[in-house]
Amino acid sequence: MTGDRAGDYRILHEADLRDYLAGLPDIAALLGGEASSWAITEVGDGNLNLVFIVKGASGGIAVKQALPYVRLVGESWPLPLSRAHYEYLALSKQAQLAPGLVPAVLHHNEVLALTVMELLEPHIIMRRGLVAATRYPRFVEDITTFMARTLFFTSDLALSAAEKKEAIAAFAGNHALCKITEDLIFTDPYRIAEQNRWTAPHLDGLAASLREDLELHVAVSRLKLKFMANPEALIHGDLHTGSIMVTDSQTRVIDPEFAFYGPVGFDVGAVLANLLMAYFASAGHERAPGDRAAFEAWVLETVEQVWTEFARKFLDLWRAGGTGDAYPVSLFAGEQGAARLEAERQSYMQRLFADTVGFAAAKIIRRIFGLAHNIDFELIEDPRTRAVSEARAVRLARAMMVETASFRIIADVTNAARKLRDWMPELSG
Amino acid sequence: MTGDRAGDYRILHEADLRDYLAGLPDIAALLGGEASSWAITEVGDGNLNLVFIVKGASGGIAVKQALPYVRLVGESWPLPLSRAHYEYLALSKQAQLAPGLVPAVLHHNEVLALTVMELLEPHIIMRRGLVAATRYPRFVEDITTFMARTLFFTSDLALSAAEKKEAIAAFAGNHALCKITEDLIFTDPYRIAEQNRWTAPHLDGLAASLREDLELHVAVSRLKLKFMANPEALIHGDLHTGSIMVTDSQTRVIDPEFAFYGPVGFDVGAVLANLLMAYFASAGHERAPGDRAAFEAWVLETVEQVWTEFARKFLDLWRAGGTGDAYPVSLFAGEQGAARLEAERQSYMQRLFADTVGFAAAKIIRRIFGLAHNIDFELIEDPRTRAVSEARAVRLARAMMVETASFRIIADVTNAARKLRDWMPELSG
Repeated sequence: MTGDRAGDYRILHEADLRDYLAGLPDIAALLGGEASSWAITEVGDGNLNLVFIVKGASGGIAVKQALPYVRLVGESWPLPLSRAHYEYLALSKQAQLAPGLVPAVLHHNEVLALTVMELLEPHIIMRRGLVAATRYPRFVEDITTFMARTLFFTSDLALSAAEKKEAIAAFAGNHALCKITEDLIFTDPYRIAEQNRWTAPHLDGLAASLREDLELHVAVSRLKLKFMANPEALIHGDLHTGSIMVTDSQTRVIDPEFAFYGPVGFDVGAVLANLLMAYFASAGHERAPGDRAAFEAWVLETVEQVWTEFARKFLDLWRAGGTGDAYPVSLFAGEQGAARLEAERQSYMQRLFADTVGFAAAKIIRRIFGLAHNIDFELIEDPRTRAVSEARAVRLARAMMVETASFRIIADVTNAARKLRDWMPELSG
Repeated sequence: MTGDRAGDYRILHEADLRDYLAGLPDIAALLGGEASSWAITEVGDGNLNLVFIVKGASGGIAVKQALPYVRLVGESWPLPLSRAHYEYLALSKQAQLAPGLVPAVLHHNEVLALTVMELLEPHIIMRRGLVAATRYPRFVEDITTFMARTLFFTSDLALSAAEKKEAIAAFAGNHALCKITEDLIFTDPYRIAEQNRWTAPHLDGLAASLREDLELHVAVSRLKLKFMANPEALIHGDLHTGSIMVTDSQTRVIDPEFAFYGPVGFDVGAVLANLLMAYFASAGHERAPGDRAAFEAWVLETVEQVWTEFARKFLDLWRAGGTGDAYPVSLFAGEQGAARLEAERQSYMQRLFADTVGFAAAKIIRRIFGLAHNIDFELIEDPRTRAVSEARAVRLARAMMVETASFRIIADVTNAARKLRDWMPELSG
């Protein structure tokens, strides 16, 4: 579809966008007043797209337009506009499965690769809040509902095999976005790659050791294969704390343009990884020793609760309605059958936990040695302090990826993190 | 495509077929002589389709037409004609990857769900030869080449992730055929199902014990999930000895209408399972005690060689050209890297072996308690003798499925089979 009319695509600059929106009666009514009075601001701070906030007399909207290249890099790195189509598909499915936890879509134009959404206000990007040591009391409840429902209901536990295959095929075309993940998360940080960067020279030695660490290379390659060839559910595919907008009382998951059928643990691992990075970065944001202790305790508690609440909700959905073709209840009749199926559900979650631990590790390492970094660490001004925080995170991540089986329960992860809180790494330079 | 013109589908009876073929100049030339002189015989002994052999003055062809229902059951069990499209796709891909090991396709008509292929003569269905205790000296070489090449070159080890996703999507529509496998192999034999049958009353107790065997139900459910959600490679999907045509010097794999992207171990397990069934059935075909001993020794040797040669060829292809996105060689540079990658290849094959053992077990059990049986056992006239052979096979299969990890190498399987050769089960009735 996009292909047929790709020639009609054009980048909408402010004036074009104003005219375009004025031509959409529902949107114009929502904004209110004369189109000429609307305030249009480009706010995209992501890596890929244009994002406009438009405010009128009576309301506001967010407009996202995909560019035919990676914004962070430029036209030398083309990227298909079709990602806007997949993002729209995913957003629609997530809105259906987890209502109120994603922004409402008000308009979508596939040719322009453009989506108009409700303006999330006064929400901020969660990562910014975490840097400021803000605690979010709704977060565990909301993110675990989002993950449990979007992942369970698109899995073989809820769908027929036929529905599942059709759904996998519907997202198969989003492979250019998957390749970004395959390269930037599962490959480049472990080899010499032009786009890699890290806090230098302090982490030069650690970067070199990762490139030589063959056990790590095997582990990350297994994770990569799982990412490529285990279409377990419709995953968000980029579920870090920069893809989550929050207030004290609301959580909204945005930007599912990396969505495809992949491993469930990739999404859950992404959330845990980004919380763990917030934890390790926290020491670097202290103004006085210990002034973020309550925040740090909250982060680790949140890590534990994200896993336990996700697992509880996912299991509850399975118990209440495992209507998919996997694990047919007819094979587990009677009291003994029910007990055996319940034990298998626990085993399933244990396997999923191992995946989650491994994927979380991969998400940490890529943020410290790969192309895309995050402000948790980047906003630590002193490079030596930043490198110390990063090295602690990498030490945990390396163990999580290579000794995954030694992390049996989520407290094994948080205890290991706590032990590394004040560990002093040897730095280079 | 099929959908657009589905109204033009008609079942070709002999006269229609003659007219149709006469309208194909290349085919008519191959057959030779007047169309009226062609001998047309319907020979389909499979479960799903019409198969005609057509012979003319100078040559012969085989014509396969899909029916809109399951032939074995009738119009009450509809089945999409699109399976002929997927069979054609798979056959074309297999011909490219394993030339000379599948029949040449001479013509395909998607609307009629009809494919014209070279006539395989004097090949016979391998299963018939095995019942007659015939040994096939080419078999190991050919079937392992077929499997290693078709499975390796359609896997993440050979394809880019993008190519792989496109290929998965191209076969996603074949889900009705997958569902037959999901139901008849992975579900029905383990519960009360109308279509189940077994050698009664002798195996009544064994059938009941399988329906109560919760460890088995967990194991088969894990295999089912792997079948549904692990698109590792383009698998044949029905690779039993009834899908293989042989002479002393040739092997041809036919009937890939169940093809889709699934687990590699399903194909390898199918071959092993059917050889093991030939082994256990052999005792029931003896005319004098021990008169098939040499054949039986050959069968077990073949089981061992099928695995070891398949593994050797698959690994050699990987070593020579792992050009896919999985296990990038750039992460395994230098001598140590190469050695670590080689160790991981061995681990990969060990995991694949476990899958193979499990799937082989599932393929055995379905042939003894499910809808579709095979002549290895069915041609044993005395039901008690047949039940003894079947019970031995089931005993091995149960162990393979539930205690998979105890089968570390293929000799563990053949040794277990050998030990059960003269084991006397308790029968019912």
